[in-house]
Amino acid sequence: MGLVQDVFDAATLDKLQGPAAIGHVRYSTAGDSSPRNAQPIAVEYAKGSIAVSHNGTLTNFHEIRGELERGGSIFESSSDTECFIHLIARSPRARVVDRIIEATGKAQGAFSLLFLTEELMVAVRDPFGFRPLVVGRRGMSWMVSSETASFDLVSGRLLRDVAPGEVLVVERGRAGTPRSILPFAPRPARLCIFEYIYFARPDSVIEGRSVYAARKEMGAQLAREQPAAADVVIPVPDSGTPAAIGYARESRIPFEMGFIRSHYVGRTFIEPKQSIRHFGVKLKLGPVRSVLRGKDVVVVDDSIVRGTTSHKIVKMLRAAGARSVHVRIASPPTCHPCYYGIDTPTRSELIAASGRACMVESYLTADSLGHLSLEGCLAALGRRDGFCHACFSGDYPIRPRRAGQEHRARLIVKGLGGGLA
Amino acid sequence: MGLVQDVFDAATLDKLQGPAAIGHVRYSTAGDSSPRNAQPIAVEYAKGSIAVSHNGTLTNFHEIRGELERGGSIFESSSDTECFIHLIARSPRARVVDRIIEATGKAQGAFSLLFLTEELMVAVRDPFGFRPLVVGRRGMSWMVSSETASFDLVSGRLLRDVAPGEVLVVERGRAGTPRSILPFAPRPARLCIFEYIYFARPDSVIEGRSVYAARKEMGAQLAREQPAAADVVIPVPDSGTPAAIGYARESRIPFEMGFIRSHYVGRTFIEPKQSIRHFGVKLKLGPVRSVLRGKDVVVVDDSIVRGTTSHKIVKMLRAAGARSVHVRIASPPTCHPCYYGIDTPTRSELIAASGRACMVESYLTADSLGHLSLEGCLAALGRRDGFCHACFSGDYPIRPRRAGQEHRARLIVKGLGGGLA
Amino acid sequence: MGLVQDVFDAATLDKLQGPAAIGHVRYSTAGDSSPRNAQPIAVEYAKGSIAVSHNGTLTNFHEIRGELERGGSIFESSSDTECFIHLIARSPRARVVDRIIEATGKAQGAFSLLFLTEELMVAVRDPFGFRPLVVGRRGMSWMVSSETASFDLVSGRLLRDVAPGEVLVVERGRAGTPRSILPFAPRPARLCIFEYIYFARPDSVIEGRSVYAARKEMGAQLAREQPAAADVVIPVPDSGTPAAIGYARESRIPFEMGFIRSHYVGRTFIEPKQSIRHFGVKLKLGPVRSVLRGKDVVVVDDSIVRGTTSHKIVKMLRAAGARSVHVRIASPPTCHPCYYGIDTPTRSELIAASGRACMVESYLTADSLGHLSLEGCLAALGRRDGFCHACFSGDYPIRPRRAGQEHRARLIVKGLGGGLA
Amino acid sequence: MGLVQDVFDAATLDKLQGPAAIGHVRYSTAGDSSPRNAQPIAVEYAKGSIAVSHNGTLTNFHEIRGELERGGSIFESSSDTECFIHLIARSPRARVVDRIIEATGKAQGAFSLLFLTEELMVAVRDPFGFRPLVVGRRGMSWMVSSETASFDLVSGRLLRDVAPGEVLVVERGRAGTPRSILPFAPRPARLCIFEYIYFARPDSVIEGRSVYAARKEMGAQLAREQPAAADVVIPVPDSGTPAAIGYARESRIPFEMGFIRSHYVGRTFIEPKQSIRHFGVKLKLGPVRSVLRGKDVVVVDDSIVRGTTSHKIVKMLRAAGARSVHVRIASPPTCHPCYYGIDTPTRSELIAASGRACMVESYLTADSLGHLSLEGCLAALGRRDGFCHACFSGDYPIRPRRAGQEHRARLIVKGLGGGLA
Repeated sequence: MGLVQDVFDAATLDKLQGPAAIGHVRYSTAGDSSPRNAQPIAVEYAKGSIAVSHNGTLTNFHEIRGELERGGSIFESSSDTECFIHLIARSPRARVVDRIIEATGKAQGAFSLLFLTEELMVAVRDPFGFRPLVVGRRGMSWMVSSETASFDLVSGRLLRDVAPGEVLVVERGRAGTPRSILPFAPRPARLCIFEYIYFARPDSVIEGRSVYAARKEMGAQLAREQPAAADVVIPVPDSGTPAAIGYARESRIPFEMGFIRSHYVGRTFIEPKQSIRHFGVKLKLGPVRSVLRGKDVVVVDDSIVRGTTSHKIVKMLRAAGARSVHVRIASPPTCHPCYYGIDTPTRSELIAASGRACMVESYLTADSLGHLSLEGCLAALGRRDGFCHACFSGDYPIRPRRAGQEHRARLIVKGLGGGLA
Repeated sequence: MGLVQDVFDAATLDKLQGPAAIGHVRYSTAGDSSPRNAQPIAVEYAKGSIAVSHNGTLTNFHEIRGELERGGSIFESSSDTECFIHLIARSPRARVVDRIIEATGKAQGAFSLLFLTEELMVAVRDPFGFRPLVVGRRGMSWMVSSETASFDLVSGRLLRDVAPGEVLVVERGRAGTPRSILPFAPRPARLCIFEYIYFARPDSVIEGRSVYAARKEMGAQLAREQPAAADVVIPVPDSGTPAAIGYARESRIPFEMGFIRSHYVGRTFIEPKQSIRHFGVKLKLGPVRSVLRGKDVVVVDDSIVRGTTSHKIVKMLRAAGARSVHVRIASPPTCHPCYYGIDTPTRSELIAASGRACMVESYLTADSLGHLSLEGCLAALGRRDGFCHACFSGDYPIRPRRAGQEHRARLIVKGLGGGLA
Repeated sequence: MGLVQDVFDAATLDKLQGPAAIGHVRYSTAGDSSPRNAQPIAVEYAKGSIAVSHNGTLTNFHEIRGELERGGSIFESSSDTECFIHLIARSPRARVVDRIIEATGKAQGAFSLLFLTEELMVAVRDPFGFRPLVVGRRGMSWMVSSETASFDLVSGRLLRDVAPGEVLVVERGRAGTPRSILPFAPRPARLCIFEYIYFARPDSVIEGRSVYAARKEMGAQLAREQPAAADVVIPVPDSGTPAAIGYARESRIPFEMGFIRSHYVGRTFIEPKQSIRHFGVKLKLGPVRSVLRGKDVVVVDDSIVRGTTSHKIVKMLRAAGARSVHVRIASPPTCHPCYYGIDTPTRSELIAASGRACMVESYLTADSLGHLSLEGCLAALGRRDGFCHACFSGDYPIRPRRAGQEHRARLIVKGLGGGLA
Repeated sequence: MGLVQDVFDAATLDKLQGPAAIGHVRYSTAGDSSPRNAQPIAVEYAKGSIAVSHNGTLTNFHEIRGELERGGSIFESSSDTECFIHLIARSPRARVVDRIIEATGKAQGAFSLLFLTEELMVAVRDPFGFRPLVVGRRGMSWMVSSETASFDLVSGRLLRDVAPGEVLVVERGRAGTPRSILPFAPRPARLCIFEYIYFARPDSVIEGRSVYAARKEMGAQLAREQPAAADVVIPVPDSGTPAAIGYARESRIPFEMGFIRSHYVGRTFIEPKQSIRHFGVKLKLGPVRSVLRGKDVVVVDDSIVRGTTSHKIVKMLRAAGARSVHVRIASPPTCHPCYYGIDTPTRSELIAASGRACMVESYLTADSLGHLSLEGCLAALGRRDGFCHACFSGDYPIRPRRAGQEHRARLIVKGLGGGLA
């Protein structure tokens, strides 16, 4: 529990020995952060030790868990990740890899998984490929991660994406390329479009496409779809910066940093009191008056979720002297719940789900509000197919089976993607 | 992890709501203290939530765990406590109480258990009754604990001991005495004799016998068996104090506090460095020279385990001016491993197992060393039967089934008994 | 700030290098514990570095501080200890020792001081000798402490007490006995009698008299003065234990441990909430029913301050079945404020100052209450003269000069004496 | 000690009551960070309580301290800030404001000061005006700070700069504008030019000039002086971003974010091990390959100090596929020590002081290295006079008096400016 750099200090890292490791970083939402739900999960079962990290969400979690519990399994956590371990432990197969294949074959939904045993590291990506998963190399070592940026950190290099439905097996002490297995029935690829919009780091590359370049192109497309007569284009730093650069380039309006982001406030979201949390946005973003005073301003962000942050941003821009404020969002409105994502505010807190655009605009007190269209978003990404964009379109690749799960579903929201390294 | 008062501070206690609770305090031995092994264990399974605290050790742990793993169970901890939960989860019985009875019926060894579900609190004591377990009352609430002293703390009162083999069921919102079930084949009672000697708090009462009174009587019996011509009788505080009072009374030698115990050094045993740990005994015990100088001293302790502490105590007494030092131990030598106890030093570290009394005496550099006999110990307790004294006599109520387990067994040693409250 | 063992952990101790050191332990009372007031105080001035630890209280603190401030001195702390440093810094003398003598010559009240510079360690005890101060040796090293028990901890040995009014100078790298200077006009010795009664550790020796032996003799004298028809004598552990042993020996009533003290609750006094603090006494002391049930009980403590603890103790004894409870206190009632002591409850909280003995008895709900007389106390100590017993008798060696200080004065109370090592 | 948000958590803030407050944030350099040197310093002296925060460095610190010590003052810290307090305490003047004026009149060097007493808040800026100081208003409250950005955080507004040599007195409970006093002989203004280059936040305004605008103009001027044939201009985020925007605009080369800065690594500089610290730069900056691969890259930073970071940045750019790397620095080389600044690396660690530009270029392994000229820098700032640029030019407004201080001087380096709020 805590920041990676606090938990894994020098002394702790010194204690970690051995030829293999997996890890997981989780964006801690208020309620459910507890050591129980921390990943990786590591257990012992009939075949020895096994650990697993999971990025994604299962849609048939309740069915699987119910079936397992009826068979006598006990659950230590409330996370769906634990299902995989139980399914593996109960598999009648002799070999560990076969048990993993059998177990993951029963799961539905989004799962990029990394298993570690004493002899094997096994990566599995669900047949739809909702979440990214990449394989890299450093010297003689193999690495699997949800983000290519992590390879850069350790001077490794990207080899390729793990394919949707692929099972990749790295054996300890065995030279040569990892064994690739494709055990599942093929499905149409459905990469989460929000990875390009917000989740992934801009210095990552997903399926051959630079996240930074994609965001810049979305900004350019946004400029074509939602032009504004303005003096400057500014980003909401840092998430809106690439799109703002694209918007400015396309619109030929000068790009400026109209907000300065302070770097020592990463933890304001943990603050207990509402009054202090509201202070958080201010602490993080300082307006640059010389850029804003008397100007017509386009402010670019990647997405709107609750709307409270955007509301404050418009207010700060006006207080700093902006003549007009045009909010431009480099993605469509998020109106539909996500069944493959990350826990977030309930539906009633979501501004786009709450009414028509004009009402949102009015809440934001902006002079205008413009979203990128889904068509434009796909055009910016260079291909129409292969994405899950259910949060925008309502077009779900898989429906959850139980009605009861509906209200557990969440709309996609800003958060750190889980990392497997 | 940590001291109870540090973990359960006022803020944390405020957060704990609800009509029922169970807890567990564990003496943390060096190696295996980790949050994973902390109790109570709380999980979810087909019938809802269940939590359990366990005081004791199973002798057929490996058989049960192996069988469970072959059936697909996964283990998050290395503790035998987890077995009970798996057995309950896999039981075909419909009612929770029946599942608990079936599960505990498969276990062998020492177990005083307390289960908590949303509707029930269920206490189970193994058929031999190795570990104590008592039931008490406070207002309209029922309480179960391994020690009567905990009832005093909350102004509750002792009702009775849970009988060996008894299953006691407290139902939420149901008036009247808890339901008592005796589902197991009766076995001869075998209460751990070491509870009276060291484990239990002196202000506790076990099976109607005051621990303090028992220890004082052991001291008196020790004086009869192992007299010494001395000027003063002093205890090794605080564990040796009641026996020293008994020894002094019987021998009519004046009782004195020859050592002052310092109270702020409870945690020296966690210190990493050997040099600092050795310092620990000194920090804890300060000799009172006016009591010791030029005197023939009887020093009374409850038991000897490693011998290193006793060795240092003799040395301190001589340095403080004692003319002669007579070590008197209010229990027999502990020469046999315990299969129902607490993890402790390996056999080779145990002084009584290593040779004859004269050699031990010589290592301690004492003028004389005298142990209470097993006969005397039983006489002091007022009854011959109903005890497990295998650590003294080698007479084991249950043998562990696997040869491999032998070397895992431990000799009984000083430690805090687990508490269930 | 915190417990010694937490602050000076292995890693911190490793960092402390060098041939000399001084330290200080302070009983933290609620309000004024802050890093600012922590000792030793270490500063730089015209002659280099100097550090000081102080046990005691100045009676002319306000006069000295006022004069210093008028001369331009600034105060970082609210402690009187800082005065010594300012006086030294402002002294016109050339040599450090002469500056120390001049500075301490201006102070009035109780002060046992230890100074450390790069070349010198200088101990000073005030002319009345209110607080103890002892000098010891370990190998080639000299040690000065407020308690002989600290020499035992490091295998050092006591040489002698520092005399009232003595200045003892240890020079770095210089062989031979420390230089002794007696620069002040002699005064009648006035050792604080409460050191023998409560402050000092029982394993310490002050001016040749064992604290343990003194307390036991006070208990014996108490038995002669305040006999009781009882079945058992029990102490309030641990502070009342030596006196209870003396009472039992003299009265020939059996000594028992009627309370078991728990050792892991040293910090209850820091707990924020009143409700939890009250729980503190219970957590610390568990009654031994077998000793108490149906018995006439004499319970011996060293002193009564607030009376709240005694009140709870009587209640616990009755709840445990005692037939009658006779409270015996091995010191006279503390009715007068102390000007040379330790910050404590205000006058209105002091039970002895609040009324006649019968009223106190009634508040305590005891069957009888008996204090040792001052005469008896002095008889037990073996000499009539040489003590300050103003807290009992009102006979003050020095009166504070300013009226305003009166209400700042405090009645002597239980606390840990400051330690200089 | 620690991050502001950790030290001043909600609970601590709740405890701070009262109508006035001052604070101070210090960039913690390795050696001298200790609670003793933390600001504000708060003491008591003859006139009551006084606290002070100080941004700057005195050049006659040793003379003043020596004189004070000879007069009997003691120093608790090694900071020059403490001198002001001693001078005030020793002043013969009756009124606090007169004491402050007398005390600050004796100081030489850089000092922006904020004093707080129970009745007054007094701001003082040295006659050269080395460090900025601004006064603002929020409702009926007056605020003084070293940065205008702090007014934005609390919705206050900037009134004006405190003038060089001005003493500004805010009296408690007194309406109307603060009293302004100009007690010192006027001196030519010498604002630290590095405030515009690096120290100040870009969203601050100093003497009417926006820091952001100044940096952007320096970048534009740099493009004119040091053009490069390149495909992209990228900043070293975040400090180089405004200059890079200016460089890109002027050169008409596209601006891109070639590095993504990670926000959770603010504390890497505290890491103990060199190996981990080196990892720090990588953890902080991730290269965006799509922007860099095959490109001629201009990378813009505000200044170079040690050169080790720049060296790594060039290496990372090449590893990410840049065809050529042109380092452009929006300030002149820093070759001369600063006597008015912040403690930093010793001279031998400074890359610009170590040799000619070509050697630096070669160390950096860049294809070219270009610095902004001092002329260009001043042109970008819009006025030639009124600056201290001794670190570039060696033209010192005040020389330190003692030869010995020379080697204590430091070259200006990246750091957070002290904040007074």
